Amino acid sequence: MTIFNQMVKYDDIELDAVFHALADSTRRAILARLATGDAVVTELAEPFDMSLPAISKHLTVLEKAGLLQRHKDGRIRRCELTAEPLESASEWIGFYKRFWNAQLDSLAHYLEKNRDIANKRHDKSRQEK
Amino acid sequence: MTIFNQMVKYDDIELDAVFHALADSTRRAILARLATGDAVVTELAEPFDMSLPAISKHLTVLEKAGLLQRHKDGRIRRCELTAEPLESASEWIGFYKRFWNAQLDSLAHYLEKNRDIANKRHDKSRQEK
Repeated sequence: MTIFNQMVKYDDIELDAVFHALADSTRRAILARLATGDAVVTELAEPFDMSLPAISKHLTVLEKAGLLQRHKDGRIRRCELTAEPLESASEWIGFYKRFWNAQLDSLAHYLEKNRDIANKRHDKSRQEK
Repeated sequence: MTIFNQMVKYDDIELDAVFHALADSTRRAILARLATGDAVVTELAEPFDMSLPAISKHLTVLEKAGLLQRHKDGRIRRCELTAEPLESASEWIGFYKRFWNAQLDSLAHYLEKNRDIANKRHDKSRQEK
């Protein structure tokens, strides 16, 4: 295996973990809460109808993806957002921008063309009256 | 439930499906292949050491996330990339850009500060010689 392949493999594992962490609305909501500042587990659990162990499992998934760090603050453990792994995910998705733009362009072109045809038909029927 | 909440719920379900679809390196590789043009299932399966049913399962996950469409072309079914759902995923991640930039800025600041301290120590030890 070449170094390049090893890098690809490493990136693949990292991207798997990041996208898996994002594939759940509770985990996305936890990240959104952490974006407003660090928090302890009970604060993070508050908006959800979920047990603390269930929230803890979500935190572990986020931690494994490198999106969350826990710090000891005396006897309290605070959670902090670490957003860097999202950059690779954003770059990966960014490659496809040209495709969704192209597909939206062709939809706009289709709608415009059909509007022109409809307008021409309308004008013609007015002239015929 | 308000219309806004319903919209959020809909977006949540869509984002769950898109991020779940992206959380697998085989599925990401299939999307990368489709970015070069439409393909039939056997062409998509070629680079992978996987059975056709296994590849089919991956295609269904991509299809459910709205990232792939199958078209009948005579007796052949061709797969096409539909990239639009990636736009919402990209927008969701984009919100966190300020955080990964801020964290990289503070790392750069830390490295610069430590380089300055090291340089000062080096200058001082040269003067003392």
